[in-house]
Amino acid sequence: MFDFKVLYESDDTRARAGLLQTLHGAVETPVFMPVGTLATVKSLSPEELSSAGATIVLGNAYHLYLRPGCSVINRFAGLHKFMNWHRPILTDSGGFQVFSLAKLSRITEKGVAFQSHIDGSSHLLTPEKVIEIQICLGSDIMMCLDDCVQYPASRDVTDEALNLTSCWAQRCKEAWENNTQKENALFGIAQGGMFKDLREKSIDALLEIGFSGYAIGGLSVGEPKDVMFEISDFTLPKLPDTKPKYIMGVGTPEDLIELVSLGADMFDCVLPTRNARNGQLFTPFGTLNICNSRHRDDTDPIDPECNCYTCRNYSRAYLRHLYLAKELLAYRLNTIHNVYYYVNLMWNIRSAVCAGQFKDFKEAFYKKRGVIP
Amino acid sequence: MFDFKVLYESDDTRARAGLLQTLHGAVETPVFMPVGTLATVKSLSPEELSSAGATIVLGNAYHLYLRPGCSVINRFAGLHKFMNWHRPILTDSGGFQVFSLAKLSRITEKGVAFQSHIDGSSHLLTPEKVIEIQICLGSDIMMCLDDCVQYPASRDVTDEALNLTSCWAQRCKEAWENNTQKENALFGIAQGGMFKDLREKSIDALLEIGFSGYAIGGLSVGEPKDVMFEISDFTLPKLPDTKPKYIMGVGTPEDLIELVSLGADMFDCVLPTRNARNGQLFTPFGTLNICNSRHRDDTDPIDPECNCYTCRNYSRAYLRHLYLAKELLAYRLNTIHNVYYYVNLMWNIRSAVCAGQFKDFKEAFYKKRGVIP
Repeated sequence: MFDFKVLYESDDTRARAGLLQTLHGAVETPVFMPVGTLATVKSLSPEELSSAGATIVLGNAYHLYLRPGCSVINRFAGLHKFMNWHRPILTDSGGFQVFSLAKLSRITEKGVAFQSHIDGSSHLLTPEKVIEIQICLGSDIMMCLDDCVQYPASRDVTDEALNLTSCWAQRCKEAWENNTQKENALFGIAQGGMFKDLREKSIDALLEIGFSGYAIGGLSVGEPKDVMFEISDFTLPKLPDTKPKYIMGVGTPEDLIELVSLGADMFDCVLPTRNARNGQLFTPFGTLNICNSRHRDDTDPIDPECNCYTCRNYSRAYLRHLYLAKELLAYRLNTIHNVYYYVNLMWNIRSAVCAGQFKDFKEAFYKKRGVIP
Repeated sequence: MFDFKVLYESDDTRARAGLLQTLHGAVETPVFMPVGTLATVKSLSPEELSSAGATIVLGNAYHLYLRPGCSVINRFAGLHKFMNWHRPILTDSGGFQVFSLAKLSRITEKGVAFQSHIDGSSHLLTPEKVIEIQICLGSDIMMCLDDCVQYPASRDVTDEALNLTSCWAQRCKEAWENNTQKENALFGIAQGGMFKDLREKSIDALLEIGFSGYAIGGLSVGEPKDVMFEISDFTLPKLPDTKPKYIMGVGTPEDLIELVSLGADMFDCVLPTRNARNGQLFTPFGTLNICNSRHRDDTDPIDPECNCYTCRNYSRAYLRHLYLAKELLAYRLNTIHNVYYYVNLMWNIRSAVCAGQFKDFKEAFYKKRGVIP
């Protein structure tokens, strides 16, 4: 069922436009996937996600395993029905979350033992277990369990983590082969920190195993921006061009444009949703802070040229009022706008690639950044 | 422009079905008005309010005067455009809020001086000022400034407050006559606490002045339920039957049914919206607490017979999960259901009155209360 085709390639960059086919429908790439960690993209309904143009959302196996738990999701035969989202879902395995959220996590070759960040209960995530969880979730795209090191990390620590990641990837692949009809895809995750040779080693191991798609993990963990781009630039071409290439947890609108130029197809990031809840709104001109007193009696929408529900119906003054009054509607209206902005940006990037005008698009994009009208 | 007609009357109770006509459209009565204190019914969009069947919402002059302030609302020529709600709006004057929220409020014949509960700034609300604010808000139905006493209150204190309320009502009427085209209605508010003769005195004073509609204030302030019903039963028939009768700040579903029986036409209350945010959901069977562990893997909607957006799309298990995870969507989905329940209850009451079957409706209503299936 899972399939990926590259439809257009940019002449002067590595940008490409593709089509992912999954059990729950098609996804045009490059694509931004809004983050719906706990079976909800914070503050949005599924209809609002669709209206904003989202075609795939991200869930998180670690979070959903802990809460509400697989026994609950099983009653709904998966996440789609549980959360009322009937388009594709990609689930992260939770490797990253175990290290960043859980208490007292302890890694062995077997897997990672940890205590829940919610109630302190003890759990063991193994490669086999994360596949089992993601099967229960009914994910269209599952991710392998990986060991993501902090930044900075020594060469030795990074090497050890990537070896474990490779070993776990092999076991994930076997569990996936033995327990699924392979209708849902399994992606490998490359680690290797900021060391190019280790990135190459990680990718070689993944290619040996063979996956439906490949992700680059361990970026945007605190490293300087130019290092992130350098590692991406080095790593992306080493992934097979016939497969989708996913950069995890990145980034700003500028990051997305640059990473598409370098050949990336898929992205997820909490930036549009989290920043919305902090009153930071993305526009073609840059970021607008809705708290700013200049918007006190501003009758304009966030972006007069934006076609999102929020911009078509509400003023900056109203959004500022809601935000300062801590009204729940504020977080939703801001999130609708930011998700629309991200999804629409990817859509425009894709159109430019298809039309052979991606370079012009990039120039125009950067030219617009500046003072908000 | 403002008009009210009684269309049907119940034979065996004082229940009646009417039609309010305002500048922003018609409202069928008896009606429940969701509370939108700060230019938003907490967590809902205007479209969700409409879909839930709401035809009129309540705003609050005290709150909106303080935040965002009249200078902002003026830029939008009123509240309707500011909050994107184009149906009728009733605004409370803020008398009740000054006493319950403001710091150091001091009442004189002139008006009420107080410090803002937000920033401590000093303000003076006079009868003339509250009309000015409500004109700025573009309210379809404005309320007079009143002096609402606490419960319990002595006869002397209650009498003094009602005399001031009557005096302010006269000045509100004059300000309304001098400064509006009278397209928007002005309602008087009867006080008099739990003393029947004082209630009568208050009403006589209001009738002498003459208003487009009459409200009963100072109920549901902590008195026993039977006292609330006794005072309503005594007071409602003393209001002219040709005018809408509005009981402020009440109540539970049972309260609404009983007060309609006693002749009330209009209601507002934070109960459906506030309780929704506390996980308390109204159903024909009684109140369902979504946190209850029995709903952990419950695939049923809140009420299988309810047609609200929430019940048509989500399970109790999902709502419980969202609520326990403190996800913003929880508050919205719960509020949609509770507002729908209240609005639909009033709709069913009205249909029963129109069909001459209100008594049967009441019986059936009470019979259903019990164990949630």
